[in-house]
Amino acid sequence: MTDLTKRVYSKDAQALKEGAEVVVAGWAENVKNLGKIAFIKVRDRTGVIQATAFPDNKAFEEIEKIPRESVVVVTGKLAASKLKSGDKEIHLETVEVLSKAEPIPLDISGKIDSNLDTRLDHRAIDMRNLKHLAIFKIRSKINAALRDFLIKEGFIEIQTSKIIGAGAEGGATLFSFDYYGKTAYLSQSQQLYKQAVLSSGFDKVFEIGPSFRAEKSHTTRHLAEFTHFDFEMAWINDFDDVLKVLERLFVAVCKDLNKNAKEELEALGVTIDVPKIPFPRVSFEEAVKLLNEAGKKLEGDDIGTEEERVLGEIVKKKYKADAYFITKWPYSIKPFYIMTDGDISRGFDFAYKGVELASGGQREHRYDVLKNQIAGKGLKPEEFGFYLEPFKYGMPPHGGFGMGLDRLVQMILGLANVREAVMFPRDPERLSP
Amino acid sequence: MTDLTKRVYSKDAQALKEGAEVVVAGWAENVKNLGKIAFIKVRDRTGVIQATAFPDNKAFEEIEKIPRESVVVVTGKLAASKLKSGDKEIHLETVEVLSKAEPIPLDISGKIDSNLDTRLDHRAIDMRNLKHLAIFKIRSKINAALRDFLIKEGFIEIQTSKIIGAGAEGGATLFSFDYYGKTAYLSQSQQLYKQAVLSSGFDKVFEIGPSFRAEKSHTTRHLAEFTHFDFEMAWINDFDDVLKVLERLFVAVCKDLNKNAKEELEALGVTIDVPKIPFPRVSFEEAVKLLNEAGKKLEGDDIGTEEERVLGEIVKKKYKADAYFITKWPYSIKPFYIMTDGDISRGFDFAYKGVELASGGQREHRYDVLKNQIAGKGLKPEEFGFYLEPFKYGMPPHGGFGMGLDRLVQMILGLANVREAVMFPRDPERLSP
Repeated sequence: MTDLTKRVYSKDAQALKEGAEVVVAGWAENVKNLGKIAFIKVRDRTGVIQATAFPDNKAFEEIEKIPRESVVVVTGKLAASKLKSGDKEIHLETVEVLSKAEPIPLDISGKIDSNLDTRLDHRAIDMRNLKHLAIFKIRSKINAALRDFLIKEGFIEIQTSKIIGAGAEGGATLFSFDYYGKTAYLSQSQQLYKQAVLSSGFDKVFEIGPSFRAEKSHTTRHLAEFTHFDFEMAWINDFDDVLKVLERLFVAVCKDLNKNAKEELEALGVTIDVPKIPFPRVSFEEAVKLLNEAGKKLEGDDIGTEEERVLGEIVKKKYKADAYFITKWPYSIKPFYIMTDGDISRGFDFAYKGVELASGGQREHRYDVLKNQIAGKGLKPEEFGFYLEPFKYGMPPHGGFGMGLDRLVQMILGLANVREAVMFPRDPERLSP
Repeated sequence: MTDLTKRVYSKDAQALKEGAEVVVAGWAENVKNLGKIAFIKVRDRTGVIQATAFPDNKAFEEIEKIPRESVVVVTGKLAASKLKSGDKEIHLETVEVLSKAEPIPLDISGKIDSNLDTRLDHRAIDMRNLKHLAIFKIRSKINAALRDFLIKEGFIEIQTSKIIGAGAEGGATLFSFDYYGKTAYLSQSQQLYKQAVLSSGFDKVFEIGPSFRAEKSHTTRHLAEFTHFDFEMAWINDFDDVLKVLERLFVAVCKDLNKNAKEELEALGVTIDVPKIPFPRVSFEEAVKLLNEAGKKLEGDDIGTEEERVLGEIVKKKYKADAYFITKWPYSIKPFYIMTDGDISRGFDFAYKGVELASGGQREHRYDVLKNQIAGKGLKPEEFGFYLEPFKYGMPPHGGFGMGLDRLVQMILGLANVREAVMFPRDPERLSP
């Protein structure tokens, strides 16, 4: 067997000199025998390279028999490509089939648009399309960029339990199960845990992990399981101290991608305009006014999805900005843990191109006030024992936000459906693969 | 209110010049009034600094009334410490109590050893002990070191779903629940998913996320929820290609901690000896022989916990190594997805100081052989539809391992119980906080 550790990526092979001996391995995207010449197009995660064989090669007759998408290892010498000037191809010496493929169940060339459901049914095959693979390379880079920024800023990464004993923020959308004879739930947010540990002295924390919501939603933006990026910092004067970190974080991610994910963004035809700091702060009151002027009345107390979209267009026109904050929400539509100034909360949303990406605020850190706020929302303070305890023993002022990482990937890349940004999405209809 | 954004860490204050005006914020670890002098010891995540006040200060009388562990902000000028030469203290100008503490429910000074259960019941308070906090600072650094190494090596970070439709590796230890009218399970391993995506062309992937096991174990090493570090790479010749990355990875983490977690390691009294590459490869056959020579017979087919411990001592003596691999396990005690050479599998364990940290191997990538192995283990290939599909359409040779991140933290720091390395551990008795 060919020594696979000698393998080079197809893209790196292009950078080597003509005549260099190379080993390239990947999937046989195409095979053909034209009589005087036979070729295999080998695809790996960096691209596609052609390996050409001539009739004097003993593998010549075998090449066209290799089923497409089989896994092959090719050895040979680099030569100038006859197809595209400047490119190289491999003059094939040996080819070995490591895994024979049956005809694949969907088109991965990008020529035929497969239905998203079909794509997700065969997700491992679907991601052979280099555009789909690129989404997940970028997703990995977004994760890295977030972490790099936060670690440099002195944040500590935490990992909290996803199995919880009580569904603190509301029981209706919780998955529940038997846990050694007790009822347990899947965590829908790290909110209460990330706050609790600030009382330990952690100071600045973040977590990237799964959260679960048993909602029956069928939108292009919601999933039953999502990757939750949670962020909390102590010693703030006001929620604006959180916004200042959030805007720098978002800019850092955009810059990082423009620098480190160039090829992947090109493959997807995406350009990222780095937003300017400071991002506009639009108060809830102003947002409603702007919407009203545009002929949009709120259908209820909250800004809905459609209103969000319209607001995004208005803000884009008025402030020339894709990224902005909506601040000073009425406390009546915010959760109990947000700090208030009378009827106005210190909560905020972070929106990008008319879609909410994160929601956060300054938290109420005063034990007595917090207990009252819990009761005021019709909840029972005694059911919040573990959460309330740290506040009793010294809690610094703090704030933070939670962001859906899947939606962040979706919006940065302009994907129509959040499912395209998730390898194996989960929704009311989908539990597999 | 004092501007909290002007705050400096107590440790950074020590590095400033005498006379410098500082703002320090944290927990009032101790307060005292000695008549001519009063002081507050302020603890933040970097240490403790003393703030001293004199009778001419209008806050003088108030200081001793501040309940211990309250959250305070102190302003003042730096001066030479009278307690320890070379150190500085703060000559207090103002002190503000941001959050008053009730008497805390456990000792955090480290003078009294609290029972681990009590500590975990009040975990957010327990972690105020700077030694306990240090464990989680180091844990964050271990996460970062793992990721830094892998990203540099070209690995892609993936995030797969924790809600799964079928419990592929064995149903007995799965948590199950109702998922929109269907039965779903909590993932016990990313094994099958990380393998599946190698058929997409990802090439090298890792994931750090939770896994769940409904085992009724009450050991110091097992939890119902743990952080799983999973690793898989394609295009290997043999399982030894995986070992070569794993040993470099482990060394990189040790070196990184020695460089970037110096103070935290000192606080815990831990020194890390960086193991030498190559780590010894001890075959299963040799391991059994060595154990027998030491008077230990296997109680069954597998190497048990106690045998593991003894083997660690033997290897330490024979090879002068804490870190080593046990290779060439009998296939009979390894899972269906491991590649075999007759009765011997290409599986391995990675052990450190007598404790298994990771388990892995070369995987069987040939569709027909894999199907036979599933059936040979008494399982039904037709129940492995999603898993088997990618193998049908071209799967490269590959291998990898899974590691318990909690146990890695435990063993590197020499902690007696894995629960000390986990913020909010879950076991058959513990579901809260």
